[in-house]
Amino acid sequence: MTRAAVVLVSGGLDSATVAVIARRDGFDVYALSFRYGQRHAVELDAAAKVASWAGAVEHRIVDIDLRAFGGSALTDDIDVPKSGVDPSTIPVTYVPARNTIFLSFALAWAEVLGADDIFIGVNALDYSGYPDCRPEYLASYQAMARLATKTGVESDRALQIHAPLIDMTKAEIIRAGLELGVDYAATISCYDPTGDGRACGECDACRLRQKGFADAGVDDPTRYV
Amino acid sequence: MTRAAVVLVSGGLDSATVAVIARRDGFDVYALSFRYGQRHAVELDAAAKVASWAGAVEHRIVDIDLRAFGGSALTDDIDVPKSGVDPSTIPVTYVPARNTIFLSFALAWAEVLGADDIFIGVNALDYSGYPDCRPEYLASYQAMARLATKTGVESDRALQIHAPLIDMTKAEIIRAGLELGVDYAATISCYDPTGDGRACGECDACRLRQKGFADAGVDDPTRYV
Repeated sequence: MTRAAVVLVSGGLDSATVAVIARRDGFDVYALSFRYGQRHAVELDAAAKVASWAGAVEHRIVDIDLRAFGGSALTDDIDVPKSGVDPSTIPVTYVPARNTIFLSFALAWAEVLGADDIFIGVNALDYSGYPDCRPEYLASYQAMARLATKTGVESDRALQIHAPLIDMTKAEIIRAGLELGVDYAATISCYDPTGDGRACGECDACRLRQKGFADAGVDDPTRYV
Repeated sequence: MTRAAVVLVSGGLDSATVAVIARRDGFDVYALSFRYGQRHAVELDAAAKVASWAGAVEHRIVDIDLRAFGGSALTDDIDVPKSGVDPSTIPVTYVPARNTIFLSFALAWAEVLGADDIFIGVNALDYSGYPDCRPEYLASYQAMARLATKTGVESDRALQIHAPLIDMTKAEIIRAGLELGVDYAATISCYDPTGDGRACGECDACRLRQKGFADAGVDDPTRYV
């Protein structure tokens, strides 16, 4: 018997890898994506491909309006920085409380499905300094989630937040995904892609991705401008 | 100097009282409501009135689609039960992870505003048995929220989740609100109101509200069908 898991799928390199890992580990994948006012809707086309590689039972896209609050270069008219990664500060591409909001919708769907497992592609090494990508954040979210739902109150079942990439380098993630059949050419990491999905090659996300392919000793299949 | 606080305002009796309490306690109120597929949009008209009593600096209404997952009589075509409150089970009016989702949007707005305070009108006594209305849930949410944001990482500031009604009976809440100028006739608690805002008088929320006015020794101003 397989178990249902909600997998957050953005269309990026990390969540693509997480989706195929969830499938490899025997879960029935319920892929969840968001239309959240991000500048690049091409991400959602990539998310649909990822869901299909992972054999997703269902792929839902939920509309939420993160632009309602502003505060990020990914949802506002703020320029995406292209001068390199500065590990000492939290960059303007940080979207306030994004992972907290995404996990909360995943929790709602998990409860309706009767699923005890949620997968998220956060990574503590190549994480660009976002506070909601740290292991202590995820552990705390899991503790909260176990108190938040009917499941936790009415049974001994305990919700698990899986972050299988948390300690992996970008190179290790890429190697794992290639073994499990991810076509990284179809994934989008860039913070500022063109309308047809070509990457800028200069933002933090592009730099981390390029370094990952180089470190893995694998050709980078990304289409750049 | 006053401080900014995000206050979750549903248009019901409890959150109306919380909003005026936040104002009394010296906060600048930023009222946050949701259009979440609830059956009764009249709630949002009530929320706008509450925001104005509380002198809100701003009132934002965020669209989110909780119907995407289903699982509740408040968002689906499930009948609202009207045969009385059964304190031993979680009722079908429970919306999966609703408070977790609402608090997560409040957290995002608080971070953008630079606010360290969030108010929510949950109540552990007359709470209908919802898991996400318990004090241990709120404490756990606060711990998670402090790890989730830039504020927690870059400064000594610590986010506070305020639930001033948590230990109050419905009668105590009503008395407190009346002293602070709440017009409860304009608030809506009913799970199944008519289109023009009249309450059914028979659902759990109506029964708890009626009992509250009776216990407080105050005339119930609610318009019933």
